[in-house]
Amino acid sequence: GDFARVDHHRRLRTGFPEVIWGPGKTPDQIAQIMIAMRDRGSVVMATRIEPEVYAQLQEKVPDLHYYAMARICAITTTIEPQYPGTIGILSAGTADLPVAEEAAVTAELSGFRVERLWDVGVAGIHRLLNNRHVVESADVLIVVAGMEGALPSVVAGLADCPVIAVPTSIGYGASFGGLAPLLTMLNSCAAGVGVVNIDNGFGAAVLAGQILRTANKLHLSQRSD
Amino acid sequence: GDFARVDHHRRLRTGFPEVIWGPGKTPDQIAQIMIAMRDRGSVVMATRIEPEVYAQLQEKVPDLHYYAMARICAITTTIEPQYPGTIGILSAGTADLPVAEEAAVTAELSGFRVERLWDVGVAGIHRLLNNRHVVESADVLIVVAGMEGALPSVVAGLADCPVIAVPTSIGYGASFGGLAPLLTMLNSCAAGVGVVNIDNGFGAAVLAGQILRTANKLHLSQRSD
Amino acid sequence: GDFARVDHHRRLRTGFPEVIWGPGKTPDQIAQIMIAMRDRGSVVMATRIEPEVYAQLQEKVPDLHYYAMARICAITTTIEPQYPGTIGILSAGTADLPVAEEAAVTAELSGFRVERLWDVGVAGIHRLLNNRHVVESADVLIVVAGMEGALPSVVAGLADCPVIAVPTSIGYGASFGGLAPLLTMLNSCAAGVGVVNIDNGFGAAVLAGQILRTANKLHLSQRSD
Amino acid sequence: GDFARVDHHRRLRTGFPEVIWGPGKTPDQIAQIMIAMRDRGSVVMATRIEPEVYAQLQEKVPDLHYYAMARICAITTTIEPQYPGTIGILSAGTADLPVAEEAAVTAELSGFRVERLWDVGVAGIHRLLNNRHVVESADVLIVVAGMEGALPSVVAGLADCPVIAVPTSIGYGASFGGLAPLLTMLNSCAAGVGVVNIDNGFGAAVLAGQILRTANKLHLSQRSD
Amino acid sequence: GDFARVDHHRRLRTGFPEVIWGPGKTPDQIAQIMIAMRDRGSVVMATRIEPEVYAQLQEKVPDLHYYAMARICAITTTIEPQYPGTIGILSAGTADLPVAEEAAVTAELSGFRVERLWDVGVAGIHRLLNNRHVVESADVLIVVAGMEGALPSVVAGLADCPVIAVPTSIGYGASFGGLAPLLTMLNSCAAGVGVVNIDNGFGAAVLAGQILRTANKLHLSQRSD
Amino acid sequence: GDFARVDHHRRLRTGFPEVIWGPGKTPDQIAQIMIAMRDRGSVVMATRIEPEVYAQLQEKVPDLHYYAMARICAITTTIEPQYPGTIGILSAGTADLPVAEEAAVTAELSGFRVERLWDVGVAGIHRLLNNRHVVESADVLIVVAGMEGALPSVVAGLADCPVIAVPTSIGYGASFGGLAPLLTMLNSCAAGVGVVNIDNGFGAAVLAGQILRTANKLHLSQRSD
Amino acid sequence: GDFARVDHHRRLRTGFPEVIWGPGKTPDQIAQIMIAMRDRGSVVMATRIEPEVYAQLQEKVPDLHYYAMARICAITTTIEPQYPGTIGILSAGTADLPVAEEAAVTAELSGFRVERLWDVGVAGIHRLLNNRHVVESADVLIVVAGMEGALPSVVAGLADCPVIAVPTSIGYGASFGGLAPLLTMLNSCAAGVGVVNIDNGFGAAVLAGQILRTANKLHLSQRSD
Amino acid sequence: GDFARVDHHRRLRTGFPEVIWGPGKTPDQIAQIMIAMRDRGSVVMATRIEPEVYAQLQEKVPDLHYYAMARICAITTTIEPQYPGTIGILSAGTADLPVAEEAAVTAELSGFRVERLWDVGVAGIHRLLNNRHVVESADVLIVVAGMEGALPSVVAGLADCPVIAVPTSIGYGASFGGLAPLLTMLNSCAAGVGVVNIDNGFGAAVLAGQILRTANKLHLSQRSD
Ligand SMILES: Nc1ncnc2c1ncn2[C@@H]1O[C@H](COP(=O)(O)O)[C@@H](O)[C@H]1O
Ligand SMILES: Nc1ncnc2c1ncn2[C@@H]1O[C@H](COP(=O)(O)O)[C@@H](O)[C@H]1O
Ligand SMILES: Nc1ncnc2c1ncn2[C@@H]1O[C@H](COP(=O)(O)O)[C@@H](O)[C@H]1O
Ligand SMILES: Nc1ncnc2c1ncn2[C@@H]1O[C@H](COP(=O)(O)O)[C@@H](O)[C@H]1O
Ligand SMILES: [Mg+2]
Ligand SMILES: [Mg+2]
Ligand SMILES: [Mg+2]
Ligand SMILES: [Mg+2]
Ligand SMILES: [Mg+2]
Ligand SMILES: [Mg+2]
Ligand SMILES: [Mg+2]
Ligand SMILES: [Mg+2]
Repeated sequence: GDFARVDHHRRLRTGFPEVIWGPGKTPDQIAQIMIAMRDRGSVVMATRIEPEVYAQLQEKVPDLHYYAMARICAITTTIEPQYPGTIGILSAGTADLPVAEEAAVTAELSGFRVERLWDVGVAGIHRLLNNRHVVESADVLIVVAGMEGALPSVVAGLADCPVIAVPTSIGYGASFGGLAPLLTMLNSCAAGVGVVNIDNGFGAAVLAGQILRTANKLHLSQRSD
Repeated sequence: GDFARVDHHRRLRTGFPEVIWGPGKTPDQIAQIMIAMRDRGSVVMATRIEPEVYAQLQEKVPDLHYYAMARICAITTTIEPQYPGTIGILSAGTADLPVAEEAAVTAELSGFRVERLWDVGVAGIHRLLNNRHVVESADVLIVVAGMEGALPSVVAGLADCPVIAVPTSIGYGASFGGLAPLLTMLNSCAAGVGVVNIDNGFGAAVLAGQILRTANKLHLSQRSD
Repeated sequence: GDFARVDHHRRLRTGFPEVIWGPGKTPDQIAQIMIAMRDRGSVVMATRIEPEVYAQLQEKVPDLHYYAMARICAITTTIEPQYPGTIGILSAGTADLPVAEEAAVTAELSGFRVERLWDVGVAGIHRLLNNRHVVESADVLIVVAGMEGALPSVVAGLADCPVIAVPTSIGYGASFGGLAPLLTMLNSCAAGVGVVNIDNGFGAAVLAGQILRTANKLHLSQRSD
Repeated sequence: GDFARVDHHRRLRTGFPEVIWGPGKTPDQIAQIMIAMRDRGSVVMATRIEPEVYAQLQEKVPDLHYYAMARICAITTTIEPQYPGTIGILSAGTADLPVAEEAAVTAELSGFRVERLWDVGVAGIHRLLNNRHVVESADVLIVVAGMEGALPSVVAGLADCPVIAVPTSIGYGASFGGLAPLLTMLNSCAAGVGVVNIDNGFGAAVLAGQILRTANKLHLSQRSD
Repeated sequence: GDFARVDHHRRLRTGFPEVIWGPGKTPDQIAQIMIAMRDRGSVVMATRIEPEVYAQLQEKVPDLHYYAMARICAITTTIEPQYPGTIGILSAGTADLPVAEEAAVTAELSGFRVERLWDVGVAGIHRLLNNRHVVESADVLIVVAGMEGALPSVVAGLADCPVIAVPTSIGYGASFGGLAPLLTMLNSCAAGVGVVNIDNGFGAAVLAGQILRTANKLHLSQRSD
Repeated sequence: GDFARVDHHRRLRTGFPEVIWGPGKTPDQIAQIMIAMRDRGSVVMATRIEPEVYAQLQEKVPDLHYYAMARICAITTTIEPQYPGTIGILSAGTADLPVAEEAAVTAELSGFRVERLWDVGVAGIHRLLNNRHVVESADVLIVVAGMEGALPSVVAGLADCPVIAVPTSIGYGASFGGLAPLLTMLNSCAAGVGVVNIDNGFGAAVLAGQILRTANKLHLSQRSD
Repeated sequence: GDFARVDHHRRLRTGFPEVIWGPGKTPDQIAQIMIAMRDRGSVVMATRIEPEVYAQLQEKVPDLHYYAMARICAITTTIEPQYPGTIGILSAGTADLPVAEEAAVTAELSGFRVERLWDVGVAGIHRLLNNRHVVESADVLIVVAGMEGALPSVVAGLADCPVIAVPTSIGYGASFGGLAPLLTMLNSCAAGVGVVNIDNGFGAAVLAGQILRTANKLHLSQRSD
Repeated sequence: GDFARVDHHRRLRTGFPEVIWGPGKTPDQIAQIMIAMRDRGSVVMATRIEPEVYAQLQEKVPDLHYYAMARICAITTTIEPQYPGTIGILSAGTADLPVAEEAAVTAELSGFRVERLWDVGVAGIHRLLNNRHVVESADVLIVVAGMEGALPSVVAGLADCPVIAVPTSIGYGASFGGLAPLLTMLNSCAAGVGVVNIDNGFGAAVLAGQILRTANKLHLSQRSD
């Protein structure tokens, strides 16, 4: 329909295809966009899809898969890593999992290798220190945390690679919907931390992927020199 | 003057004397209150005294001592600890020192033993882990941090005693004058952290002292049983 | 499951066991964590459990008790005080009771003696003054208040022990979800007040308990001198 | 000049003359407005006048008096009360005096009887209780407080007359320039409190005066019935 | 029950009885408090009572009347004015009526004469100017407005009596739940405006009543001189 | 220099030339940009120029004129109106003049006729009503107001032309640097009000000019039909 | 009823009739106002009408039409443009459509020609550049955008006509209900942008219409010269 | 001194040495830390050094170089790029240069190749489009913008590499010290943007450098496979 002007060239321009953001669209609009994208040969993927919406989409779009914890819908079959390097994804608590999984599934569907490490918040710092190998072996890290959001600072002080921090809206009271961990991450005394929007696992995965793609391009261009 | 109604009984009621808060008072008013308190036999102490103000007070109030880094003025001579127990005071950065010293000097002038540990912020977590004995040997901890203010959460996950968190206004941009570390500390996922106002080293010291005094009272009352 | 990394040593390290925070977890996740903790011999306790969630947990976890007003679930039988000293808990209004009871039940389940005093807000100050013995006989005070949150300042001016202030989200309009009493408590002109997050009765109880445990440790260490 | 359109009829319409607000005007503009008002026979009064500005005004406007603590300039000689009733003015701390005096001097220059009671903040509640007669004998109360701003709630719970609350910008950190006491006062659990802008002693005095004038008008209209 | 400590002497102390605030209390708690108050001979009145809650209260408390638009429940029969003077109540829009009626019914149940003037917002200023007699004949004015909340400033510039401003949460977007009209009213360039909390029609009525009671007391005391 | 990339075609594209915004640039940078623009035949104009900066510019850029109240510098001689129509500019108070003059001078230098009306704030609504002809004869209105910023709503309810509202930072306390009037204007219940940034007299003038230019273009295109 | 005081002369005064704002009114109140307006010969139009409310209105008010996407109800038949000129309306995303349609339908019902361009957000700037003719042929532009709200700045840099920016509440996390795009638009470095409230498509259309009406009036007045 | 606990191993752990942050430290403290670092063989670099502070440091620390626009002090001689790849740095305006230069100088001193493109804000989008080669040839981009901060969104829609967005405090009014561009960048509808603190050019450079270092490491590890 003329309500959407899908950016079919985005993959060519930026390396990543346009992805449908579910909220504020009717299931019907989402289904129409999905079909239009599939017909143009694009990757088809939508985020923030609640189970009820998936139930309706499923009837209109064939071969649709639902990643329940990540709230992602996609028409894709293989998810073999297509780029060298590993994205390490850490979460501070169990309640941060939907956001962490949004990052993980987006990254995997985009062709990157992911290593997950859940529930390693700073209140029990040994949980992180005991799993330091995940931090050390990753080529780029996504760190997801709600409440006070202190985990990315500690990780960035240990890691020798770029760190992407994702604040979540998990918490209450003076968390103010994720404002608290957002400010924490922006003020990190450990330099080299890039922050994305509250609950934006998707954006973190795109940035992490962009970093690994760049590494690959640089590698290829140097090899050809 | 009738501009001040000093709460001379506060020490009897709450264990701590009234202390003069400098800002918004003229040097003349401060001096008059100091003299009135001294004449009633009270402890005389004022916080947030800039060097210029001290220079003026010095001429009006004899025997006044100035703790420059802590910005505290006091008429006191001995500062031998009068209570059992130790208050451990940690700062995340060098720039947090004025607040950390306000806490330390207030505690010492009130008769408590203090152990200082400066510049152990979470961006280099080994600095804290290598000095873990300070955390472990304290009976109550005051943790001072600006920027993202993550240190108290990490310390509270390691300590087996009450932790008092003091956010500072050190930082810039999205620190919003100390709002960022304040929210961080209030949302700490490590339970058992009490927070005071931004830059309020004084209040943290009074609370820490109150905790050690309570311990002492409880001890005496049990002994007498 | 690998979605949770329970911090089984927290009791050893900090004196308090890890406690499950309900929001953002599925009943299934909560039940699995509870069973894992019980099997490791830990205390099992979860906060912010709505009646509907309790109904589901009850079927999966045997011997679970529900403290309805406090919204707490626990597997525990005896709650005989195990430490000397009393935690006085005050609430400003009737609507603050869920938070005040969260503090009271947490403290009791952790082995501390609690004395409750409800509905003594500052609009009728005689209600507090007539019950001054509760303030005077406590060894540590938790003061719970919503709306303007003025009660802790008044209490701290009367009490000779540490005061922990808990702002609540009770109120409307310019209360901004508890921001108003939170700021009130942080700016208290009565020194020696430690503040916790909005509605965080649990954290207040852990801090109060930590204070009494410290008193006890100090007592034992001195006795052994 | 045409830069100002003095509202000469305001006294007829609302009972109070227009008063010059100093900030953002050049001394020259203030002096011109003063002379224009004096020539029309109006009361001449300006608030928020710093000493330096007064020094310049003095040279241009004859018979100008400066109330230094209140930062008010006026051409007026007699200040005999012209209305029955008393305005009680209370301040929580010494640092609140400039605002409290702005209220007091405005009220006196407008023909009302004022009773002052300074430095009776809630951290030492006995200071207020010992001076309860001021609260009880006033016909309207102005309560000025910074930091946590809890005094008006306590006073309103004791007083049998209207209470006007004035938050001040005295404080630091989470006071956020007076936001904290402003919210406290708006959320007062004691009904019957009207709040004015931060540091607005002037507005509080006009409202208090308006209340006593109304009482007087009602009295006269009833007498004539 | 011991969950509530009704302030039975409040009427003696402040002229107004304690009134029950509905939110956060169970219908059962409200009914118990109502019965306890009725048995002590107090006036019985509760605010913010939704129709569903009223349906439950009605079965437990006999003779309960419900003012639907004002969301107030009360046991009261006569509402003959008991004090001289009139409270004029103005609303800016139709959607502000629940708050304006909360003020009107509270005032009437407390024994004051009320004159209502609805939907006279500043976007059509002639609506106010054509009804200027309401502004001019009132002894105290309550002005209720949402959205930009400009009405009280305009009214205060016309009125020769105290003005109480009530911001409402009516609006959307940058109204931020009533913050916009609240700030407007606090910054009113027309002096003599007292502001209450967002949507607090009840508090405005108590303050207005307090003003008329004071006028009456002053009148009586003068007559007896 | 390569520090600036002047948008020389902006006039062709949008009808208005690029104008230099002074803050954050050194006087040297400003002078270099001015000279580059003059040499390209552009109109040369800079806003937010303090007197001290003007003093330095004057020595480097010949024929520079300074509009002191408006804080604008320009190389321009004639300011004969070049477009039909009148921009009416109103200010609520005297302290709003710098912003109102920034709008007026920008409009005049851009070739538009301006009619000024200062100090007609809503606290004395007759000042506006008595000058209603200014409102009625304008083709577009700019309304400048600080403090509560209510003037644009009242004007928009009277005017039969577009209204541009400019909040100013004039005020104190809960004005929060102009946030209060900004929110007031955005929430205006009188539709048809466009709002610009706090203190942005310049932007208001460009928008007003754009409106008159559009009217003119439409006129010409219709005439040619 | 006396709950509403419809401003029947608004069309005469300002060119636009009063329009009913749905929220906070009962369907019954809306229907009564509609009938009263229709009987006075006014245009009848209501905004923010949910489908359920429309279902009820339809039974009480004959000939009512519902524009579902725009959430507008109206009794109107012809919508032939009555004024020269075109209002171009752009939206950044698909989810912004309800707001963009509120603007479009309001403008059409008020007699203006509208050209729509949906889903041309800045993340794919070519979508805008490829449709530049819409920007260039419009006489006034309404630009609707949520999330970061950058579209109006880019459009205003390209357009040679007035630009009205409408922030929407579409987004999440640090969008804070539309605060982010609101601030973006207010700070636009492209001058000549007027901003309306978050989601206020209605107000944008009234302002755009006002601009075209002014152009027309100016045209007529010049022709008659 | 014991006031600082320099993290000498940071370079080993994270690839970047500790860098001194100037604010809140006395020149004396800065000099002592510099000398200690130099003696340990560390790179010596300090940010946010005002010219007056540099003047004092220069006397205490030999061979110190000052980058005035960037406000950076360093003891370093060669700045030959040591890593493959280019960091493109864009600024929206001339006033953003101090932040953009902080990024550029930090990157160059850390051994990276930098390409600068200043003053290409979105109000004249052709300035960016005409310099598209800078965007296309960079391996990682740093985009610095104040005011509305829209540039990173547009750039990220064009770039095929990671984008780091730096909001600046340049602006006024509703910019709220950089909050506006910060929110804009966090809400970017173009995925793959990592945001750092307001004015934090330093942190952006470290993150960009970290990305190029990772690319290099990945390259080397693959080559060795
Ligand atoms: N979970 C998400 N968070 C943020 N942006 C998203 C998300 N999912 C998709 N997007 C982006 O949203 C845009 C689509 O917006 P729309 O045109 O409204 O569908 C695309 O640019 C996507 O890259
Ligand atoms: N640095 C400080 N921060 C917070 N409160 C303080 C500080 N120094 C003194 N006080 C408290 O401020 C109050 C004195 O306020 P005042 O009456 O204005 O002198 C006393 O209750 C002190 O306990
Ligand atoms: N969607 C809308 N957004 C903002 N204002 C509106 C909207 N619809 C109608 N209005 C205005 O709201 C006012 C009516 O408010 P009320 O008296 O409560 O019906 C009129 O001035 C309308 O011009
Ligand atoms: N301009 C800057 N912005 C943010 N962080 C910085 C800046 N300059 C240095 N740092 C970091 O600040 C920390 C030093 O803090 P301190 O111990 O107070 O000197 C180091 O971790 C640096 O990486
Ligand atoms: Mg966990
Ligand atoms: Mg350091
Ligand atoms: Mg009660
Ligand atoms: Mg005092
Ligand atoms: Mg109406
Ligand atoms: Mg004036
Ligand atoms: Mg789209
Ligand atoms: Mg430029």
